[in-house]
Amino acid sequence: MNDSDSGLLSPVRAGTSVEAATSDEAWLQALLDAEAGLARAQAELGVIPAEAAERIGAIARAKAVDLVSLARRSRESANPVVALVADLTALADPETAEYVHRGSTSQDIADSAAMLVAHRATGLILADLERVAEGLARLAEEHRDLVMPGRTLALQAVPVTFGLKAAGWLHSILAAEDGLRRVRAMLPVQLGGAAGTLAGYVEYARPLFGERYPDELLAGFARALGLATPVLPWHTARVPPAELGSALSVVSGALGKLAIDVQTLSRTEIGEVSEPSGAARGVSSAMPHKRNPVLATLIRTAALQVPAFALILTQAMLAEDERPGGPWHAEWLPLRDCLRLTGGAAATAAELVAGLVVHPDRMRENLDRTGGLILTERLAAVLSPSLGRVAAKALMTEVSAEAARTGRSLRETLLADQVLAARFDGEDLPALLDPEGYTGAAGRLVDRALADYRRRRKG
Amino acid sequence: MNDSDSGLLSPVRAGTSVEAATSDEAWLQALLDAEAGLARAQAELGVIPAEAAERIGAIARAKAVDLVSLARRSRESANPVVALVADLTALADPETAEYVHRGSTSQDIADSAAMLVAHRATGLILADLERVAEGLARLAEEHRDLVMPGRTLALQAVPVTFGLKAAGWLHSILAAEDGLRRVRAMLPVQLGGAAGTLAGYVEYARPLFGERYPDELLAGFARALGLATPVLPWHTARVPPAELGSALSVVSGALGKLAIDVQTLSRTEIGEVSEPSGAARGVSSAMPHKRNPVLATLIRTAALQVPAFALILTQAMLAEDERPGGPWHAEWLPLRDCLRLTGGAAATAAELVAGLVVHPDRMRENLDRTGGLILTERLAAVLSPSLGRVAAKALMTEVSAEAARTGRSLRETLLADQVLAARFDGEDLPALLDPEGYTGAAGRLVDRALADYRRRRKG
Amino acid sequence: MNDSDSGLLSPVRAGTSVEAATSDEAWLQALLDAEAGLARAQAELGVIPAEAAERIGAIARAKAVDLVSLARRSRESANPVVALVADLTALADPETAEYVHRGSTSQDIADSAAMLVAHRATGLILADLERVAEGLARLAEEHRDLVMPGRTLALQAVPVTFGLKAAGWLHSILAAEDGLRRVRAMLPVQLGGAAGTLAGYVEYARPLFGERYPDELLAGFARALGLATPVLPWHTARVPPAELGSALSVVSGALGKLAIDVQTLSRTEIGEVSEPSGAARGVSSAMPHKRNPVLATLIRTAALQVPAFALILTQAMLAEDERPGGPWHAEWLPLRDCLRLTGGAAATAAELVAGLVVHPDRMRENLDRTGGLILTERLAAVLSPSLGRVAAKALMTEVSAEAARTGRSLRETLLADQVLAARFDGEDLPALLDPEGYTGAAGRLVDRALADYRRRRKG
Amino acid sequence: MNDSDSGLLSPVRAGTSVEAATSDEAWLQALLDAEAGLARAQAELGVIPAEAAERIGAIARAKAVDLVSLARRSRESANPVVALVADLTALADPETAEYVHRGSTSQDIADSAAMLVAHRATGLILADLERVAEGLARLAEEHRDLVMPGRTLALQAVPVTFGLKAAGWLHSILAAEDGLRRVRAMLPVQLGGAAGTLAGYVEYARPLFGERYPDELLAGFARALGLATPVLPWHTARVPPAELGSALSVVSGALGKLAIDVQTLSRTEIGEVSEPSGAARGVSSAMPHKRNPVLATLIRTAALQVPAFALILTQAMLAEDERPGGPWHAEWLPLRDCLRLTGGAAATAAELVAGLVVHPDRMRENLDRTGGLILTERLAAVLSPSLGRVAAKALMTEVSAEAARTGRSLRETLLADQVLAARFDGEDLPALLDPEGYTGAAGRLVDRALADYRRRRKG
Repeated sequence: MNDSDSGLLSPVRAGTSVEAATSDEAWLQALLDAEAGLARAQAELGVIPAEAAERIGAIARAKAVDLVSLARRSRESANPVVALVADLTALADPETAEYVHRGSTSQDIADSAAMLVAHRATGLILADLERVAEGLARLAEEHRDLVMPGRTLALQAVPVTFGLKAAGWLHSILAAEDGLRRVRAMLPVQLGGAAGTLAGYVEYARPLFGERYPDELLAGFARALGLATPVLPWHTARVPPAELGSALSVVSGALGKLAIDVQTLSRTEIGEVSEPSGAARGVSSAMPHKRNPVLATLIRTAALQVPAFALILTQAMLAEDERPGGPWHAEWLPLRDCLRLTGGAAATAAELVAGLVVHPDRMRENLDRTGGLILTERLAAVLSPSLGRVAAKALMTEVSAEAARTGRSLRETLLADQVLAARFDGEDLPALLDPEGYTGAAGRLVDRALADYRRRRKG
Repeated sequence: MNDSDSGLLSPVRAGTSVEAATSDEAWLQALLDAEAGLARAQAELGVIPAEAAERIGAIARAKAVDLVSLARRSRESANPVVALVADLTALADPETAEYVHRGSTSQDIADSAAMLVAHRATGLILADLERVAEGLARLAEEHRDLVMPGRTLALQAVPVTFGLKAAGWLHSILAAEDGLRRVRAMLPVQLGGAAGTLAGYVEYARPLFGERYPDELLAGFARALGLATPVLPWHTARVPPAELGSALSVVSGALGKLAIDVQTLSRTEIGEVSEPSGAARGVSSAMPHKRNPVLATLIRTAALQVPAFALILTQAMLAEDERPGGPWHAEWLPLRDCLRLTGGAAATAAELVAGLVVHPDRMRENLDRTGGLILTERLAAVLSPSLGRVAAKALMTEVSAEAARTGRSLRETLLADQVLAARFDGEDLPALLDPEGYTGAAGRLVDRALADYRRRRKG
Repeated sequence: MNDSDSGLLSPVRAGTSVEAATSDEAWLQALLDAEAGLARAQAELGVIPAEAAERIGAIARAKAVDLVSLARRSRESANPVVALVADLTALADPETAEYVHRGSTSQDIADSAAMLVAHRATGLILADLERVAEGLARLAEEHRDLVMPGRTLALQAVPVTFGLKAAGWLHSILAAEDGLRRVRAMLPVQLGGAAGTLAGYVEYARPLFGERYPDELLAGFARALGLATPVLPWHTARVPPAELGSALSVVSGALGKLAIDVQTLSRTEIGEVSEPSGAARGVSSAMPHKRNPVLATLIRTAALQVPAFALILTQAMLAEDERPGGPWHAEWLPLRDCLRLTGGAAATAAELVAGLVVHPDRMRENLDRTGGLILTERLAAVLSPSLGRVAAKALMTEVSAEAARTGRSLRETLLADQVLAARFDGEDLPALLDPEGYTGAAGRLVDRALADYRRRRKG
Repeated sequence: MNDSDSGLLSPVRAGTSVEAATSDEAWLQALLDAEAGLARAQAELGVIPAEAAERIGAIARAKAVDLVSLARRSRESANPVVALVADLTALADPETAEYVHRGSTSQDIADSAAMLVAHRATGLILADLERVAEGLARLAEEHRDLVMPGRTLALQAVPVTFGLKAAGWLHSILAAEDGLRRVRAMLPVQLGGAAGTLAGYVEYARPLFGERYPDELLAGFARALGLATPVLPWHTARVPPAELGSALSVVSGALGKLAIDVQTLSRTEIGEVSEPSGAARGVSSAMPHKRNPVLATLIRTAALQVPAFALILTQAMLAEDERPGGPWHAEWLPLRDCLRLTGGAAATAAELVAGLVVHPDRMRENLDRTGGLILTERLAAVLSPSLGRVAAKALMTEVSAEAARTGRSLRETLLADQVLAARFDGEDLPALLDPEGYTGAAGRLVDRALADYRRRRKG
């Protein structure tokens, strides 16, 4: 029996489309697609017969290859392409076999396949991010003016709005998406031959072509695979995978921020949002009453892992010579995990955002919980002109401590003291102590974020 | 079709025993073993009927569970145990079903299973490390006095011996092995119930047991799984996985040091060692003449990845509350990869060391390449008493530069200058310039390392 | 003006003793101590005159060296020792100068100095960890039976005790401390000469000594510096710094766990603990009412950084040849940061634990907040014998949902339904619904942890 | 005595301009610049008197603040701004004091200062990268057709050119530079007030301004500091520092690739390049003859560290609430180290590239060392039409092995066998075996890279 890649240890991606798009089978198919694409490009340039390219395309099917055997034979050359070329050659009729992997090298195929997988997977990720962004834009709009406690260093600080919170999540995701789009558009085919000079390709094409052959071959191969044309072979110029890993880790971080906020707001004692519920969703093995915020939990698992995987990709830039013995080979596993975990997180976030339940009553209850302390910044500002900034803040600090000590509300505390009460004479204290009245530019900021969102989607 | 976990992207572990021991199937079996072990421990204490425990043991077989379905249902609770308990309950007859997962919680099962997998996998790793150490001890002994160039900052420095080099590899691996053994001996079962108080277990056992029941249950469960008894439940006291990851990453680093040295010494221009050859071993897809040092390459891939995976485990120590929503769940994938990659590297290193070919002729040739410059430190030491330390070094620096400029050997350069020649009058210059005579305490150090190795193996 | 190392960007260690013990000045002194210790060891073996060693000891004072100039000249050789030897030679009288750095190499001095600094700094860290542990043991004992909500995946789960919580913090810190003590006891001097053969040392000592000279020199140097004697030079066998970094990162993680729990429990809506207050402690620049949990914040900053720094140390194990060009040199900065941040966190945690304020009233209030839902696990257990485990849990799930929907307490919900009410006939429902009665083995577990603590402190 | 920040443990940046630009003093000045800029922006909008802004600007001088005291007081609030505002207030005359930090919050100042420092430091880095690129373009052009061995997995593979090698280094650096420029252009000011609503700012400006005030204030502050205007406050939307860290780590990786290649090519046995020499450059403390490649070593130290520091920045995206207690504060130290190490590496690389010495004689010598084996790929291609691809490669593999076994050259081995000799009848074997004739499209690829370089510099 084959070992399975079920996602048992990584539920965030179990059953998602990006899991399938990055499976061993998908990777194997991409390797074969790269071989077929290379033959096609060579055929277009007249270097190999068109029929050979066609036949190579026809036999280059993952199902025809014994994946487990291939993986084990990969140990012999530290990469799967040598054994794959043998398999493909064996699958081909003798004449076609001549044109398999012609002039090529393992890394041309393996890197091009990795970029192909990355291109496909990031396409899926971006589609999910669009759903996330759409959901967040809707939440920001719907709850533009819904007041809730803002919290800093774990404590209630000043009022904010749920709209602004959603807008903040949205904005990070859009910025992260931008980075990913930029990198995706530049994912290049790899083509260099044994040591990056294209010598093998040129040798086979020698009688036919002139100076521009390398340019044509690079462009033709890129066209065949739907990837970007590199300026140079990048066997050891590893900016593309490093930037891809970085962009994915920024995406995972932006999704992770959403997740930890949902977790915090879901806390029993806070209760300002709930995850969408489903039949079995959030069930505990022990406690009947619980509905755990599992979607946020899944997303957070990705955000905790992706940066570490991406680090491996950046460090793999230290690739000695014309092909290093290790740094290149160490890229494959973390690259897949970056794609899978980020993709799983994006799909999960789309589900989370689509069904997120907001509890305005709990927000109001929490706002009231401090008896007005959440508005001390404002009162200090109001007192500043008469008392001076420093003295006003010191006074409010004292009053806050008094209120905390006695358990009385801020308002009572203020009014209980004659001098203090006098300070607010002429001010509308109830209005000053209404959290709804102290949301600053929150609404305006939501509008800015939504305008930016719409501009990006049009662009 | 299931996705396969073939090792295509991670050849270092493809087909190794540690791969099988850490597969999804193996992990699933360990989850089931944990459920069965819990029932057994409860039965021994008389809390559930012995037959129930027996029957649970009989149905707890990975083959009876649909792994892919299980993994996908894991998304509902962010861990696989809730769905697994449902499956196990469905497999059981109604009476037995009552005793499945009794008083338990997902994390007790999942953590105990992870430790079980880790215990099994580290057993395999240690066995391979013993083979590596044995091979290195043999190399150190056989080549105790074989002189070769020592190199620092990429340049030939002073002579060393291959025996000392092997002893250095050996010593790091033994030290790393020590750390792994220490951690392995402490791998604990997890048992705490819903929030670490054991309340569920106690509730079910209430009429029967007194104060010592928790102690007995913890010890009994540990005994059932062959793991250590924890002082406390460690749901959020995550020292064990963090230390395990760290120990594995130190092992991978020690193996990686061996690997990069083998790569360097294999360089075409150096050629002092070769990897063991095999039919297809080291074959390039492009270049017929190459025999790539692929074993070292595979090992290095592991050493480049494991520390990043281990980092996730250390960071997962920031586990809030009585169970965190994310950090715990983020441990599983990197823990497996730490085990797999280190295990793959150990198995590969055993193969590498067993067949490493040493080329004394190339060592000698390389020693001669600098025309004696590799002995300037010694000559400076010889001149120090008469010239003073600083002046002696300055003089040798000048002479070295002169030799480099002219391309003449150090000896010729020295003798060409009358004053200089006089300095060495009375010294046996040929003997002073013989690398064999300037290996310091290398032999003695090899002996120290071998004595230490034997002491450890006896201990 | 010198650039200052004030801790502006790293307040967790600003002004702490470990900051001073790891400053550039302290490191410089350790480099000088290593030179002096080497001379002393050589003098004891009769290889250099005792007066020379004494004089070297006398001039080896950090104040005599221009630190900034030294650092800049370090660029010329990629390490500070070459320039330092020049400075020390210049400070010495001509006769003494002959014995400075005799037979030595930069790495012997730099590594020994790093281990000296590490030894001193970890001594300070361990002392602070002892204070932390002592404070936590006191908290665990005092609050052994203080009931509070246990929380998993952000939601209230079942009751726990604050004593058990403190015991859990304690236990992790003790386990982490163990790892650090183990590594500290093994911190070795470095001594190998240019390429690890001790050839330089042997050459200078040649006429005097026999086979055991290397053993004596290694042991003597270790004695001179109060460090461990290595089996071999470890220029490129980098287990010691890698293990040190790992141990520190586990310590930082254990402290970080305490910190995030304190932050969570400090949340306005939870309020179960407060940090110790001081005049200016926790003040916000904007909000007069806030008392931020700043000590926990500082500790958490360390826990977020140390694992990444430690990763560099593990990866530096890939040290090629007899001295690598980069990996070794990349250790110094992260090693210092690991020490400083962990040390700052330990000092801060000692302060936090010593003054942590516990609020039993808020714990009780929070326990009551779910109207009994925190006890559904127990009720399901109680119903299991009559209903069966699965049905009992399903029933309690339904009842919980009903209670959540209606806002009524669990008790009311149960009693409102005749059938359900009947189920609990004969049970003492108020007692069953009292959180105090469902803390399982919490007390016993606290006792286990305290016994373990006392055993360790005696041991 | 102050602790010094001399660079003793980080020589790669000791004395560089980026070190000064990121010192504690520079950071303190940036904090003060942010306060001054905020006042200026408020004055421009008429919210505070112009004279107040002017006076704040005049007193906002780092020298007026006791840095060490400030850093220590930072512990009280976990960030330096609270104490700095106190100091600035104390420095101001009473009237001006009213306008210090008006409506603001610590994070607005600290983040804006960090971005200011980053903007200044990345400006220096980009200038150095331009020098590096210029030098590499020159090397690529000058040595466009200089043939040398290409090496893969440590072994000689096929010929390449030094021009192509330099072009590859250039290309990576340009791509990395691109990423850094993109991020630099977007470095935003921070402005949100206590919890991101701008409420404090709005409150103070209340009578004066309408709906567009937030937009004007954001834009005005950005203008005052020369940074980008954010769409929203980004207190917990941490894409900017995460992307900055990622971009810097890609730059460090691109420089690191150059460095490890220089180290490899500098190896005694390879000797194809040397670092520029200087009086004391590359001196060893032990060995008179060595000229260590220290510049490459310094650069590599940076490349080994920066990705780990950058990881902290990405993980800090998991910033809970409206301001997290830890993740934000953990950004400062690694952000500085990312800037410093990358900046030090860029400055060092500029020096390295400017003076790199190329040794064509050693390249030729190394090409000859394999007796023609470096051309087996070509011969297999030549034989393919007649023998078939697979058979041709198998034959060349056999011949290569024979040549390796006998020590004879490939040519001799070919010609010694009649059948084989016949195969090459009609071919110009000497020409086929000339490495100069098998550089594929290397020249053309260099031209592509140089054209791309010129296009970017014009763009």
